[in-house]
Amino acid sequence: MLIVMRDHASPEQIQHIVDHLHLAGAETHLSQGEVKTVIGVVGERELVYSLEMEGFPGVSEVIRVLKPYKLAGRDFQAEDTVVRVGDAQIGGGTFGVIAGPCSVESREQMMSVAASVKAAGASMLRGGAYKPRSSPYAFQGMGLDGLKLLREAGDSAGLPVVTEVLDVRDAETVAEWADVLQVGARNMQNFMMLEELGTMRKPVLLKRGLSATIEEVLSSAEYVLKGGNRDVILCERGIRTFETYTRNTLDLAAVAAFKILTHLPVIVDPSHATGRRDLIAPMCRAAIPAGADGLIVEVHPDPEHARCDGPQSLDLDAFAELASTLGPRVALEGKHL
Amino acid sequence: MLIVMRDHASPEQIQHIVDHLHLAGAETHLSQGEVKTVIGVVGERELVYSLEMEGFPGVSEVIRVLKPYKLAGRDFQAEDTVVRVGDAQIGGGTFGVIAGPCSVESREQMMSVAASVKAAGASMLRGGAYKPRSSPYAFQGMGLDGLKLLREAGDSAGLPVVTEVLDVRDAETVAEWADVLQVGARNMQNFMMLEELGTMRKPVLLKRGLSATIEEVLSSAEYVLKGGNRDVILCERGIRTFETYTRNTLDLAAVAAFKILTHLPVIVDPSHATGRRDLIAPMCRAAIPAGADGLIVEVHPDPEHARCDGPQSLDLDAFAELASTLGPRVALEGKHL
Amino acid sequence: MLIVMRDHASPEQIQHIVDHLHLAGAETHLSQGEVKTVIGVVGERELVYSLEMEGFPGVSEVIRVLKPYKLAGRDFQAEDTVVRVGDAQIGGGTFGVIAGPCSVESREQMMSVAASVKAAGASMLRGGAYKPRSSPYAFQGMGLDGLKLLREAGDSAGLPVVTEVLDVRDAETVAEWADVLQVGARNMQNFMMLEELGTMRKPVLLKRGLSATIEEVLSSAEYVLKGGNRDVILCERGIRTFETYTRNTLDLAAVAAFKILTHLPVIVDPSHATGRRDLIAPMCRAAIPAGADGLIVEVHPDPEHARCDGPQSLDLDAFAELASTLGPRVALEGKHL
Amino acid sequence: MLIVMRDHASPEQIQHIVDHLHLAGAETHLSQGEVKTVIGVVGERELVYSLEMEGFPGVSEVIRVLKPYKLAGRDFQAEDTVVRVGDAQIGGGTFGVIAGPCSVESREQMMSVAASVKAAGASMLRGGAYKPRSSPYAFQGMGLDGLKLLREAGDSAGLPVVTEVLDVRDAETVAEWADVLQVGARNMQNFMMLEELGTMRKPVLLKRGLSATIEEVLSSAEYVLKGGNRDVILCERGIRTFETYTRNTLDLAAVAAFKILTHLPVIVDPSHATGRRDLIAPMCRAAIPAGADGLIVEVHPDPEHARCDGPQSLDLDAFAELASTLGPRVALEGKHL
Repeated sequence: MLIVMRDHASPEQIQHIVDHLHLAGAETHLSQGEVKTVIGVVGERELVYSLEMEGFPGVSEVIRVLKPYKLAGRDFQAEDTVVRVGDAQIGGGTFGVIAGPCSVESREQMMSVAASVKAAGASMLRGGAYKPRSSPYAFQGMGLDGLKLLREAGDSAGLPVVTEVLDVRDAETVAEWADVLQVGARNMQNFMMLEELGTMRKPVLLKRGLSATIEEVLSSAEYVLKGGNRDVILCERGIRTFETYTRNTLDLAAVAAFKILTHLPVIVDPSHATGRRDLIAPMCRAAIPAGADGLIVEVHPDPEHARCDGPQSLDLDAFAELASTLGPRVALEGKHL
Repeated sequence: MLIVMRDHASPEQIQHIVDHLHLAGAETHLSQGEVKTVIGVVGERELVYSLEMEGFPGVSEVIRVLKPYKLAGRDFQAEDTVVRVGDAQIGGGTFGVIAGPCSVESREQMMSVAASVKAAGASMLRGGAYKPRSSPYAFQGMGLDGLKLLREAGDSAGLPVVTEVLDVRDAETVAEWADVLQVGARNMQNFMMLEELGTMRKPVLLKRGLSATIEEVLSSAEYVLKGGNRDVILCERGIRTFETYTRNTLDLAAVAAFKILTHLPVIVDPSHATGRRDLIAPMCRAAIPAGADGLIVEVHPDPEHARCDGPQSLDLDAFAELASTLGPRVALEGKHL
Repeated sequence: MLIVMRDHASPEQIQHIVDHLHLAGAETHLSQGEVKTVIGVVGERELVYSLEMEGFPGVSEVIRVLKPYKLAGRDFQAEDTVVRVGDAQIGGGTFGVIAGPCSVESREQMMSVAASVKAAGASMLRGGAYKPRSSPYAFQGMGLDGLKLLREAGDSAGLPVVTEVLDVRDAETVAEWADVLQVGARNMQNFMMLEELGTMRKPVLLKRGLSATIEEVLSSAEYVLKGGNRDVILCERGIRTFETYTRNTLDLAAVAAFKILTHLPVIVDPSHATGRRDLIAPMCRAAIPAGADGLIVEVHPDPEHARCDGPQSLDLDAFAELASTLGPRVALEGKHL
Repeated sequence: MLIVMRDHASPEQIQHIVDHLHLAGAETHLSQGEVKTVIGVVGERELVYSLEMEGFPGVSEVIRVLKPYKLAGRDFQAEDTVVRVGDAQIGGGTFGVIAGPCSVESREQMMSVAASVKAAGASMLRGGAYKPRSSPYAFQGMGLDGLKLLREAGDSAGLPVVTEVLDVRDAETVAEWADVLQVGARNMQNFMMLEELGTMRKPVLLKRGLSATIEEVLSSAEYVLKGGNRDVILCERGIRTFETYTRNTLDLAAVAAFKILTHLPVIVDPSHATGRRDLIAPMCRAAIPAGADGLIVEVHPDPEHARCDGPQSLDLDAFAELASTLGPRVALEGKHL
């Protein structure tokens, strides 16, 4: 931690801070320029993070150099984390493709999607049973019935299934029926849910929040890791900006950054990021050289009649066509499907 | 709803959409320009909100004219909602001031703050027992013990108490000890929690999410109102933007907009919005002519040693000084403390 | 400047940087923690700003502690700059109100507005002769004829006039006819124009860019000040965010921040900030306790038929009504109209 | 244009608007729902864009359906524009790579870079002679001497040269020495400069502004095209968001969107977008499947001693290595270097 003092802070103010830090158990180093004095603070992560020095007299700025996460960092673990679910795998050279509808709507819909995306090369099946909707007047999902249909469809096609935990109280039920537990963008900083998932033994798919920084995503992952669950998959799905042509702004540089900062696998969701069917295929392909370890794509047998996210869903043929283009691109990055 | 067709959409594409809408029970009106055709769609809110037309062939854009909320709107209820808590009141001409520390830390701290802010004119006491922290290594709050200390301090000073519900599973416990249930910015779209609070009989203080639009705040309020709980207080606390000098960007025009769009009372939190002690007093005063019905301010007897948010907390004297300047400004807007 | 080294940077990397800095004429101080080393760099502003150390081996982050401006800062000049134009004054306790139409459209329009806003208490007249428009198909202003009409209207009402310099090649012409030279938001970082205006002897009204930070506004002001022109008025007019209900997001905390950081007067433009007529009056009044030294408001005798910005213009009566409410609010801040 | 009326707007208000529009020469179509009335407005682009209806009594919202540009759109020209400069070409299946230092610093530097990037496969040479810098205390470029060095280096290596026009008054001088005229992000809405460049006969490289929407980029391109200069290259270089890990947020979905909306070639600048050397190569490669027609990359023989943008510059070897990976990826998109 670096404490930048105001111009012409008094020697008493500086001494007051140094004394306070020594009492707290930290070490200090002074750097005094003509106009600026900077106090370097050294100590354990927990100690340094518990110090809130911004309010002291004479302080201009406090800069945290230590990251707010540890277990998620490459410094802690250099080799890639590989998440295995049944026969499927994400990370460590395996590029995983998760596909399926926004929401589970019927047995027929799920069986049709599952068979089709499996044939096209998907490695997991997605489908929402509990749907977060901005308006209470929109379709909220089929709940437990949806979970069961998802499971059945996944089993019949031989695909592990991914679904969202919307309410921490449902976490155990969801874990009974699903293989991967998704934390939605709106819950990325629902810390109680993250702690709960940290105690479970199922992989967690953590979506980036709409206004979450790269560092905050890693801090949220840390909540799960700290609980003992080491199987966390990060998901870039677009951030909220001033641009309105796309639903969100897909931040592929964040994917490249995650690959440097963390050992956790990272996947990309171009459906939610762009909200536009015609941008999904190019963004899926762009995610690959950005460093992604996989994709999650919305696919629906009849997007026109989808109860949610139709405009950003591919139909079965469009997904198959897209999937057929991934192989050579993945291979160029030294990975395989 | 307005469906804007692509330039030169075919008559068959237009007819296909019109047929689909009629089947769904909606009425349509066509507006055909030289290059653009627009289909107006008329029907019940629930029906129109269930239609996802963006994916149909030939569609360029879908514009929703009906708002995703109803109960929260001025069209539904013209007169201001007034929230009453014990002797305190917010809205309908009464300007409420909620003050207290970021987190409950000790009995001594709480008793001291409560007596002091009461004397200075605050109408409610705040204090966090469960703290949402980006990093799992930061102080997480005292939990139930904190709730009890908050209650005791409020009772001793004769102030109703406000605290955050961080986990939906704690909602009932919090409701046992607190008078107003706060939903934090990170939970503004935790729809399951909003639904739960909608069934309770305690007022809800709903903070705007870091990347939530004005319309989304009102949609979240709608979740609570739809459950039967009509006592919702909105809170503007800054949105996330590119500016880094302040912690967030306080959006006072949103306060003025809320007063036009909704009958719910609106308060302002300059502590979280700015994150800087020296900006709190001017922003408190600016909130008044913007239309605010109240304030929520972080106050700590010893900000230097606060375990959270010290840099944005006022000490007891600074709060008393600020509070003494509010009266004439509130009066100029035709309201009273 | 602080140079934060990567974890476990080698002693050679650190020495390499220290040597480079000493050669360049800077002094260094080392702060070595268990995992992090930080090099403090001390020297002249120009020297330190010319060092780009981010690319050196082993560097994790470079933090600039010295501000990129000097003349604009409170440290350089503690007392408020007061800008005087004829009888009018902005800053140093005088609250100035600049009013007039978005664009000059006709002699009749300008004479009517000028007389009316003068009667209502405005201290300067605004009007655009050269208009920046996103689309080349929109009205671009009357040019020189507009300048002359603005001058005539101002003279007849006894009001100094403010207008935008859109093209650096027109700066001298504009300076012949106008009293205050406005730099629009889109030109805030048109550094060549800023330098040109720095050599002129007319006050400059510098609008904040749509995505400019507080520090960048002050750096742009520094370009003008450095040229010798000390009469710069800053103008907060909203920044671009994800919120679409308002045209931009008015950042009143930036006004309070500017009053701390700089001695230059600061005014607020609620017309462009909100883009909505019904939000202008509350935002004008909120600007006062935020610390503003004045306002700039769009006023048109017939907003329905305005050739630009009609939706955010007040008519003559609405402006008069608004103006009549400012006095007591300004007085409460210890200022006067 | 669609005019959405407020709920329960009076028949008189609706008629008033319809009359006004008919007088102005536009046609109208009414769509009346139970609560909402929408007026569709049809007419010539110039006419419709001159109507500002937001201020009329009873109006809730005005939605513009016609785009503010025409010549830039795919509807106007379906086939790709190909920009040819000497032997080099961008667009229409040819992927162009522009490389060179942020700023021209010396003859030696330029000759070394030019020869090296030519050998690595670059098709044009870049280098800044006039540098836009936020702070007046930073290095501002070598000016005319820089232009001449750039020309000489390009000629010696057989590469056309690209450089920025920072001041409209220098446009002709720059055009004398350079082959492609760059408009920097900060000047993207300097409409007077765009108009000037529209009259010239050299290709224009138009960079996206930090807070410019996709539509605004196309409107700015329209200014150049309308002047008669049809050779415009768009450049995505990142937008300003809340994320601070990267200098800006690279918006690759905008690249895919541009390829749908416009016939103009689009290139990507990962150096300015990310500001971090280690993210440049992955983002260069990700730009290809996103649809880019080329790249512009900062390359310096000695990034440590670069006078500007060192931290985001590749050295000669790193660029050569990157360039060697582009061929197969470009081929997969059906293009060639």
